[in-house]
Amino acid sequence: MAYGGFRELTPVDEAVDRARALVRHRPPIVEVPVGDALGRYVAEDVVAPFDIPPFNRSVVDGYAVRSRDTFGASPSNPIVLKVKGFVGVGETPAYGVGEGEAVEVSTGAPLPPGADAVVMYEKARRIGDVIEVLEPVPPLGNVSRVGEDVRRGEVVVRRGTRLMPWDVAVLASLGFKRVRVYDVRVAVACIGGELVELDSVDDVESLFKRGFIVNSNRYSMEGLLRYHGFTPVYMGIVRDDVEAIRAVLEEALEKYDAVITTGGASVGRIDYTVEAARSLNPELLVHGILMRPGRANSLAVVRGKPVFMLSGFPVASIMGFEALVKPILLHMVGAGEEPKPRIKGILTRRVTTPVNTRSYVRVKVYTREGRVFVEPLALTGSGILSTLIKGNGILIVPENREGFDEGEEVEVVLLRSPASIEP
Amino acid sequence: MAYGGFRELTPVDEAVDRARALVRHRPPIVEVPVGDALGRYVAEDVVAPFDIPPFNRSVVDGYAVRSRDTFGASPSNPIVLKVKGFVGVGETPAYGVGEGEAVEVSTGAPLPPGADAVVMYEKARRIGDVIEVLEPVPPLGNVSRVGEDVRRGEVVVRRGTRLMPWDVAVLASLGFKRVRVYDVRVAVACIGGELVELDSVDDVESLFKRGFIVNSNRYSMEGLLRYHGFTPVYMGIVRDDVEAIRAVLEEALEKYDAVITTGGASVGRIDYTVEAARSLNPELLVHGILMRPGRANSLAVVRGKPVFMLSGFPVASIMGFEALVKPILLHMVGAGEEPKPRIKGILTRRVTTPVNTRSYVRVKVYTREGRVFVEPLALTGSGILSTLIKGNGILIVPENREGFDEGEEVEVVLLRSPASIEP
Repeated sequence: MAYGGFRELTPVDEAVDRARALVRHRPPIVEVPVGDALGRYVAEDVVAPFDIPPFNRSVVDGYAVRSRDTFGASPSNPIVLKVKGFVGVGETPAYGVGEGEAVEVSTGAPLPPGADAVVMYEKARRIGDVIEVLEPVPPLGNVSRVGEDVRRGEVVVRRGTRLMPWDVAVLASLGFKRVRVYDVRVAVACIGGELVELDSVDDVESLFKRGFIVNSNRYSMEGLLRYHGFTPVYMGIVRDDVEAIRAVLEEALEKYDAVITTGGASVGRIDYTVEAARSLNPELLVHGILMRPGRANSLAVVRGKPVFMLSGFPVASIMGFEALVKPILLHMVGAGEEPKPRIKGILTRRVTTPVNTRSYVRVKVYTREGRVFVEPLALTGSGILSTLIKGNGILIVPENREGFDEGEEVEVVLLRSPASIEP
Repeated sequence: MAYGGFRELTPVDEAVDRARALVRHRPPIVEVPVGDALGRYVAEDVVAPFDIPPFNRSVVDGYAVRSRDTFGASPSNPIVLKVKGFVGVGETPAYGVGEGEAVEVSTGAPLPPGADAVVMYEKARRIGDVIEVLEPVPPLGNVSRVGEDVRRGEVVVRRGTRLMPWDVAVLASLGFKRVRVYDVRVAVACIGGELVELDSVDDVESLFKRGFIVNSNRYSMEGLLRYHGFTPVYMGIVRDDVEAIRAVLEEALEKYDAVITTGGASVGRIDYTVEAARSLNPELLVHGILMRPGRANSLAVVRGKPVFMLSGFPVASIMGFEALVKPILLHMVGAGEEPKPRIKGILTRRVTTPVNTRSYVRVKVYTREGRVFVEPLALTGSGILSTLIKGNGILIVPENREGFDEGEEVEVVLLRSPASIEP
């Protein structure tokens, strides 16, 4: 297939699947304090070291009994049991419970041997050292069984889980002070003679007028990596030169787990980055993807590690991260995609997209009079920053469609909650 | 209304609304490097300092012309224009374009005075120092107008926006090296004589047997705060003692922007924390919320700052964070709720919840043969950790329902993507 200067473009899923099959590198594992593990990916299954509860325990304040001793009890026909003593929380029972006997227990206390249920205070009448049981209690009534909550040996957090606040709390509850997580370091190199680092700019407007731009892709790529729990390592701006790019790729592949480049891989001029990757004898080289924006996005696998060569256009590289980088990095840590917020709404304007291409249309979602509307923003041209600012959602048009009609109901991935625009 | 030991319980929305109306404190603002601003809340509107593009510029390689000079051009009737020179990217045009004239321009170059459109190379034939234009170009054809992308003075990031990777990239593009964000520090104090810090535990199983537990609420609260872009400040474990709690609240209110306590506020025993808050002459004291789990959650506003007194039960305090803490902290920074991933599925078992109460039922969402199922996990009892481990969603039952029937379609907030369970 000849298409816009590329010999052959590859569908998104095919590119991802082929790369996944060839990425053999496993990121290093580090052990971190559990309090620092939020948002990181667990490197191996974590197994419960003991049962919770660690013994049969009472879930009420009352009297531990043999349940069968209480059968037939009623207010008019109470059953009398002898109270042998008391067991509090954290105490080891000094008494067993035999026929006709009871032991007073507090909530959380272990059941004495022989007892299999607890009669609540409210269901008994205390008279000196005996109680009158007013109601029967079934076996295991008011008892939390050993291992009922968590069983020893049970997997509590699986490899590849991204640790959320409640996972960290569960690990702490079980006494894990440290946890083994993946340490995924991803090199970021930005290619292009027109790029200037933000820190070295005094007057951005005059910079623009002189044909230069701030290297903003550094910030989007670093931010996306951090947002998803990976560690960016910034390699700087590289000039449009195959040898210079090759040197950076070599260094990055030597030291880190994956590489992202932006720029240097566009239509209509020399694809410096792709040439540099090709010179490294890649196991896979996918040059151009059937996605829009981001047709110039490419990827390679070199020495078992992924190399993502993304477009220099801000939106195209962000979509390339979503479509290519994220699924492959998640695969490297054994994780699945996290669920995304989605919303359905009425398209306010026809969207036309190229066939066989997965299109990511930035949209503005809003509600008016209780209905949800989806307004497509400019797909191409100069809306480079404004669609990022004004959009709050992405309409993904699959390969087998050429767009959606005005008035059609579409489902959108929401980046921010829709604003309510009342007329 | 008398209910389970509380004099009066307050509906979730009413508690939040009353607190929002009384929280007058504004968190301090700090200026941070734009590269460190990911996930933070912007403290004031950010306005574009200049137009993008900063001038009318060509979006193709070709010839800048007066569009009306090209009207009527065709391959059989080409219009001849004189080429006066060349303007590249970053150059200031040395030539104007008069009638019958053209100036060669490269992509991104500014339009020379007089020109209002660009003829692409492909639509002209160059012969020495003239061109034959083969096709007319409309006014502004192949031109990106000044301010078309971003207009000077336009708000590019609004106060209260939580900065996502693309926002950071936009700020960098516009030359913002630093950005003013809220610095919200929230004190976390955990109340209860049964609590032990993870770091000081050697044998958690024996700790459990002795009636103590690891203070895991510290980790869930710190994690939830960080996850939502706020800074936790841990104040330690506090014993069940009104004076001790009051001293911690005083210190926290003096130094920080909000306070969260866990424990010390339960049914059936003295509500130490609520008593301590009451002694501080609060502007608002809501004791007990119509939510489940989390009926014991309470909140106060003291000196314009919110004090969240959450249950000591892990799940109840996590739900209390979701229902009470998050909306009020977001309000303090001018932010709205972020969208949540949701999914619809068939309920596998009847769920019964108390009326007039907002219930948060932990569920396990899974797919089988392409259909989505929602399995409720234990609501109460000993499933304290396991519902956190096994659940991947929350079914919120609103106040006006008493549950849902088996087989009913329900919508669930997804915490993790559902597993596929194939038979």
